[in-house]
Amino acid sequence: MLEQLKEATLEANLELVRSGLVLYTFGNASGIDRETRLVVIKPSGVDYHDMKPEHMVVTDLQGNIVEGSLRPSSDLKTHLELYKAFSGIGGVVHTHSEHATAWAQSGRDIPPLGTTHADYFHGPVPCTRELTDDEINGDYVLSTGTAILERFADVDPLAVPGVLVAGHAPFTWGTSPRDAAHNAVVLEAVAKMAFITVLLNSNSRVSEALLDRHYFRKHGAKATYGQNS
Amino acid sequence: MLEQLKEATLEANLELVRSGLVLYTFGNASGIDRETRLVVIKPSGVDYHDMKPEHMVVTDLQGNIVEGSLRPSSDLKTHLELYKAFSGIGGVVHTHSEHATAWAQSGRDIPPLGTTHADYFHGPVPCTRELTDDEINGDYVLSTGTAILERFADVDPLAVPGVLVAGHAPFTWGTSPRDAAHNAVVLEAVAKMAFITVLLNSNSRVSEALLDRHYFRKHGAKATYGQNS
Amino acid sequence: MLEQLKEATLEANLELVRSGLVLYTFGNASGIDRETRLVVIKPSGVDYHDMKPEHMVVTDLQGNIVEGSLRPSSDLKTHLELYKAFSGIGGVVHTHSEHATAWAQSGRDIPPLGTTHADYFHGPVPCTRELTDDEINGDYVLSTGTAILERFADVDPLAVPGVLVAGHAPFTWGTSPRDAAHNAVVLEAVAKMAFITVLLNSNSRVSEALLDRHYFRKHGAKATYGQNS
Amino acid sequence: MLEQLKEATLEANLELVRSGLVLYTFGNASGIDRETRLVVIKPSGVDYHDMKPEHMVVTDLQGNIVEGSLRPSSDLKTHLELYKAFSGIGGVVHTHSEHATAWAQSGRDIPPLGTTHADYFHGPVPCTRELTDDEINGDYVLSTGTAILERFADVDPLAVPGVLVAGHAPFTWGTSPRDAAHNAVVLEAVAKMAFITVLLNSNSRVSEALLDRHYFRKHGAKATYGQNS
Repeated sequence: MLEQLKEATLEANLELVRSGLVLYTFGNASGIDRETRLVVIKPSGVDYHDMKPEHMVVTDLQGNIVEGSLRPSSDLKTHLELYKAFSGIGGVVHTHSEHATAWAQSGRDIPPLGTTHADYFHGPVPCTRELTDDEINGDYVLSTGTAILERFADVDPLAVPGVLVAGHAPFTWGTSPRDAAHNAVVLEAVAKMAFITVLLNSNSRVSEALLDRHYFRKHGAKATYGQNS
Repeated sequence: MLEQLKEATLEANLELVRSGLVLYTFGNASGIDRETRLVVIKPSGVDYHDMKPEHMVVTDLQGNIVEGSLRPSSDLKTHLELYKAFSGIGGVVHTHSEHATAWAQSGRDIPPLGTTHADYFHGPVPCTRELTDDEINGDYVLSTGTAILERFADVDPLAVPGVLVAGHAPFTWGTSPRDAAHNAVVLEAVAKMAFITVLLNSNSRVSEALLDRHYFRKHGAKATYGQNS
Repeated sequence: MLEQLKEATLEANLELVRSGLVLYTFGNASGIDRETRLVVIKPSGVDYHDMKPEHMVVTDLQGNIVEGSLRPSSDLKTHLELYKAFSGIGGVVHTHSEHATAWAQSGRDIPPLGTTHADYFHGPVPCTRELTDDEINGDYVLSTGTAILERFADVDPLAVPGVLVAGHAPFTWGTSPRDAAHNAVVLEAVAKMAFITVLLNSNSRVSEALLDRHYFRKHGAKATYGQNS
Repeated sequence: MLEQLKEATLEANLELVRSGLVLYTFGNASGIDRETRLVVIKPSGVDYHDMKPEHMVVTDLQGNIVEGSLRPSSDLKTHLELYKAFSGIGGVVHTHSEHATAWAQSGRDIPPLGTTHADYFHGPVPCTRELTDDEINGDYVLSTGTAILERFADVDPLAVPGVLVAGHAPFTWGTSPRDAAHNAVVLEAVAKMAFITVLLNSNSRVSEALLDRHYFRKHGAKATYGQNS
């Protein structure tokens, strides 16, 4: 079942490897089929080198395994929280990419400092609050999702397709697993450039007008970038 | 038409990929044929992997498409402004290379800190002023060109073949698309070394005499570098 | 003798090369056979490119060569000190990987700043005291081992499988040579992310609860990561 | 003539490319035959990709071309000054490698901060004074050599086989072109680690005892590293 989505999910995982965003078995990508409400996710702790579409695990939105003989990624419940709350997304990616993770560890939002950021993220890439000890000792992976959703109470997740989980690492999402992986790659580049920029000038900021201009150049009804109209 | 220039323009775009200066469809290179006053530029948002010479778009200096079925790069008007104002150049390149972009985001000129810089840029690599909201909301890509030209009112563009657009990213140029791409690669290296240098010593500067010596070693009638005399 | 361990030890050394952790002949990995109490270690100063299992040197825990025509790694005695004191380990790795070495040179522990760290190291990666001049001028390589053991007087070496030797570089260990090399690769990533993090926010820290949660997600009886239960 | 030395010199140049130390035609390596007092050096501005042993230029110690149809590297006179003054060396290398160049641009010596440094450089890697305007406007390349020699008035060039030329970039040397290239690669790694270290702790230093211990572990009559005794 869902053979195309399994291939797309595997391919998104491999894009993380090719882009140098993951070490060993780090990171995970998933996709959702909105008709059947089934999620396809990478198995936990399996070598990317040996991974095949049939290793992907299929679950429902409650996390019950519907197909697959391997355990799903240990971050599954966070993915599910995002799919349940963000109805427009089709893929989720989690990495420990170096610069985005460092911003997450620092507890700081990545401020929009230029057009590379604005082309993809219409505002700061927010950092969640820290989880409480009770959340950490309880249903930790689900609470990670809850903390993300809190930060998006008044933010459009399609306009800001990524988040930093404080003390942890980034999640990104998109219209498909491929799009979510693409956003993870760009987020790491944006995080690296923001790091260098704040060391050069701690007061850097981009104007609202420029943020809008670049974001809407690539997104929405009036987009002019690329070959689609 | 302009088959050689299309190949040279494609090749300059691919040089940006090989040198690690661009992600996905980021970046663009163009070339001009001064006789016909026609510009060849990369199409917008097309994968580098699939790009062929026949995908290049040919426009006149007003931006009218003369040949090609794809949309030109969304930065076309900036390229055209540079070709119109800088009569000695034959190629233009735009990237979001990491360190040069971070300098652009910081709003700082890259000061000449050593001979690597001086070999290519006879003075600081200037950063433009920020665009006004009206410019951003109006003909934004053209105004980017205008802001660049302002900074070159009293600078020879052949002696300083690159610029940082504030809050955005670098543009470089040269006698050909290949030369412009070469300057983009060197600018990124210069920007990285300048970043490290200012963290080690915020007061670093190179003397005027050394700046002159190295620049004129590679450029002009008395150049002694390489095999041409 | 010990053919499998020789191959595993060679493979761990080559993993350091593949991961960009060593230059030229830098670095060394070893493994121990706990039944025979024999150690297999890389020879000193031999090119990785030409290295074969039969070049591995076999010694006893006193450093006497039992098999092999080449000199063992000059760091042998440090490896032996670790094998003698840490009965649960099966492999040791030493590198001069860039960021971990920089932390060692700075004399600072790497604080636990996020879950990447916590997944592998259940607490700070400690930095040893500096060696005294007498130790340096005496049995230096053995004293390096002694200084490491001092820092682990009240730390479980299996819960913190690595150390920074002040003014020198990291050692890591694990249940096998492969596991020790894996920990060396992760330590370098953790050290790089910690460097970026402290520049972004010098007060970053991760909570004890999160440190515990992530560590025990991958280790011990209640681990839930991967495919083994 | 000198066919072996030409191959060794070409090979040292290519080692700089493989190690990522040079862009395009940057950098140059040379070797000397002490019997005939002839120097073999890379030609100026030729692509590494096309370079063959027969392109190497042979000169005497006064810089007269003895064999070869191409112009020698524009840094030839600096190489010659080093060969004339440092009788024990057989190869010289010049690069603009990123971190070593940044230290040169900052005008700071690279202090010995750990054993990686001490294994190769028995003391700081010194930075020259800046050249005077008269020197820059006069015989600039020769004066670069003079400034280097001044810094080595009381330093053994075989114990510290490299230097930073202020506002310019590093030179390294060694017993052969291969050894000089090896030292250039290690200098870049040492420069990068020192940069990270001083950002983590601006007061880092290594003890004299440790500096001696590591240096003499690899050099001189009592060396114990590697397979030669």
